[in-house]
Amino acid sequence: MREAQPVGEVLSPVITPFGADLVPDGPRLAAHCRWLLANDVGLALFGTNSEGNSLALADKQMLLDTLVADGLPTERMMPSTGVCSIEETVTLTKHALDTGCTRVLMLPPFYYKGVSEEGLFRYYSEVIERVGDGRLRLYLYHIPAVTKVPLRPALIGRLFKAYPDTLAGIKDSSGDWSNTQTLIDTFSADGFQVFPGSERFLLDAMRAGGAGCISATANVNPAAIAQLARTWRTADADAQQAALIQVRDVFESVPTIPALKATTAHFSGDSLWATVRPPLVELDPTNYANLMDSLTLIDFSMPGLTTA
Amino acid sequence: MREAQPVGEVLSPVITPFGADLVPDGPRLAAHCRWLLANDVGLALFGTNSEGNSLALADKQMLLDTLVADGLPTERMMPSTGVCSIEETVTLTKHALDTGCTRVLMLPPFYYKGVSEEGLFRYYSEVIERVGDGRLRLYLYHIPAVTKVPLRPALIGRLFKAYPDTLAGIKDSSGDWSNTQTLIDTFSADGFQVFPGSERFLLDAMRAGGAGCISATANVNPAAIAQLARTWRTADADAQQAALIQVRDVFESVPTIPALKATTAHFSGDSLWATVRPPLVELDPTNYANLMDSLTLIDFSMPGLTTA
Repeated sequence: MREAQPVGEVLSPVITPFGADLVPDGPRLAAHCRWLLANDVGLALFGTNSEGNSLALADKQMLLDTLVADGLPTERMMPSTGVCSIEETVTLTKHALDTGCTRVLMLPPFYYKGVSEEGLFRYYSEVIERVGDGRLRLYLYHIPAVTKVPLRPALIGRLFKAYPDTLAGIKDSSGDWSNTQTLIDTFSADGFQVFPGSERFLLDAMRAGGAGCISATANVNPAAIAQLARTWRTADADAQQAALIQVRDVFESVPTIPALKATTAHFSGDSLWATVRPPLVELDPTNYANLMDSLTLIDFSMPGLTTA
Repeated sequence: MREAQPVGEVLSPVITPFGADLVPDGPRLAAHCRWLLANDVGLALFGTNSEGNSLALADKQMLLDTLVADGLPTERMMPSTGVCSIEETVTLTKHALDTGCTRVLMLPPFYYKGVSEEGLFRYYSEVIERVGDGRLRLYLYHIPAVTKVPLRPALIGRLFKAYPDTLAGIKDSSGDWSNTQTLIDTFSADGFQVFPGSERFLLDAMRAGGAGCISATANVNPAAIAQLARTWRTADADAQQAALIQVRDVFESVPTIPALKATTAHFSGDSLWATVRPPLVELDPTNYANLMDSLTLIDFSMPGLTTA
């Protein structure tokens, strides 16, 4: 196994602001991205917590164009480009590359269930070959509770062997540390970057040789998560980790995506931030009250967050 | 409960032909559609068995345009237009209406799991209101084994009450007759059409007051299925039903979509028909041999099928 990396990287599946008409709002997204970057957190756009799969392909292209035109650094971005059709996945991936983003996160096609390793291998192969761009750094996106289409180590190994320069890593949102550890133990020594999908596993991941984390709660608690990723060798690392878990627990005790948006609405003073797209719904009054009480109890805030 | 309808309607989620490059082929699709119509089976385009969710939005628009330009009757079509984003579902639905198809089948948004009835109600409401076309006849598409997002009677009732002129029916691909019967008993008296997603339940559905069926195997066995739907009150109806199930069993004993395409390839002499898109894979040699043996054993054929 290779030596553990000295510094971990933290990215957030950036929550997506909508107007009252549910149209995504580029300038407000750019403002939130700037706040995340100021807190040393990168931009995993259009992920699950971004409601990425509730957005049209054209919306995602527009939002990425807005961020890049706004001067946000593409090297800190990792847009999700995996949808259900090969063509649309290729279109989005090429668009990301055209704007200067070389790193993309890619779901498996998630309509059909029970698909074979061979079918998934062909899917990713077809996408990689149609994109046909040596700059591409593809991160697999394993989130079986949502996709119901797991990406198992045998598939990952086959893809990594076939496309060693393109397969750059994985976001493991299984929530299962033993799976993350297996991935790190199996692939990290060869430069494959494993990001657990929660800061709950950040310290364990850094100690084992992982790359950092890509976490929903980095939308609201970026500075503390990024600090542990930078300073995980220090004496207070376990205490830092415990504090991160305390915040994480609050956001996992209620529907997480609406809770992240409600919290951002509260601390930014921009009530429209609480808007989610169907099929999601905003927090009900009980959950909202519980969330606010819990956040007060742990003295939580989002320093420096303002409206756009 | 209303009197059972005298004649049932059968539609097939039409399998989609691809070229060797995986590009969908409009003229070959039109030829297969013409054969289905000649056998009294309507066209539920872009469904699960059509690999509809492996197609790009632009592909679906192109294929629908090709069929309509080819003179195929839009009143016999029911394209699937439900994808994960409200905008794209609206775009496809409007496109269907623009080409003259008033009936569409609509999946729930299928990325997020565990979504609430309220969230699904808002999703369908938003789509219906954005489409804003009094001609629309929307059929819900309940296929929980694939979407993992069930459409429960309470939701259906709420939508039917809110949009009585638009909510036209449902395809119930639960494979659970008791669910189909509940839907028929609850909603059919008010003109809501319930189509089981398999001819296995066709006779039961017709006797209970259902509308017919929308079935994958109608791609290969259309005439016999359509005959039972027309003649379900005749003395030999149970014998007809038993014969349909015999064929159905064969196609359910192997991966169904590749089996339908392999069978069509075999009887049309057009080997390209066997092509499926990743993440699906063609039948392996063992399954293919078993399929062909089983079809020979029941003396199965596809009379009148030719290449395009």
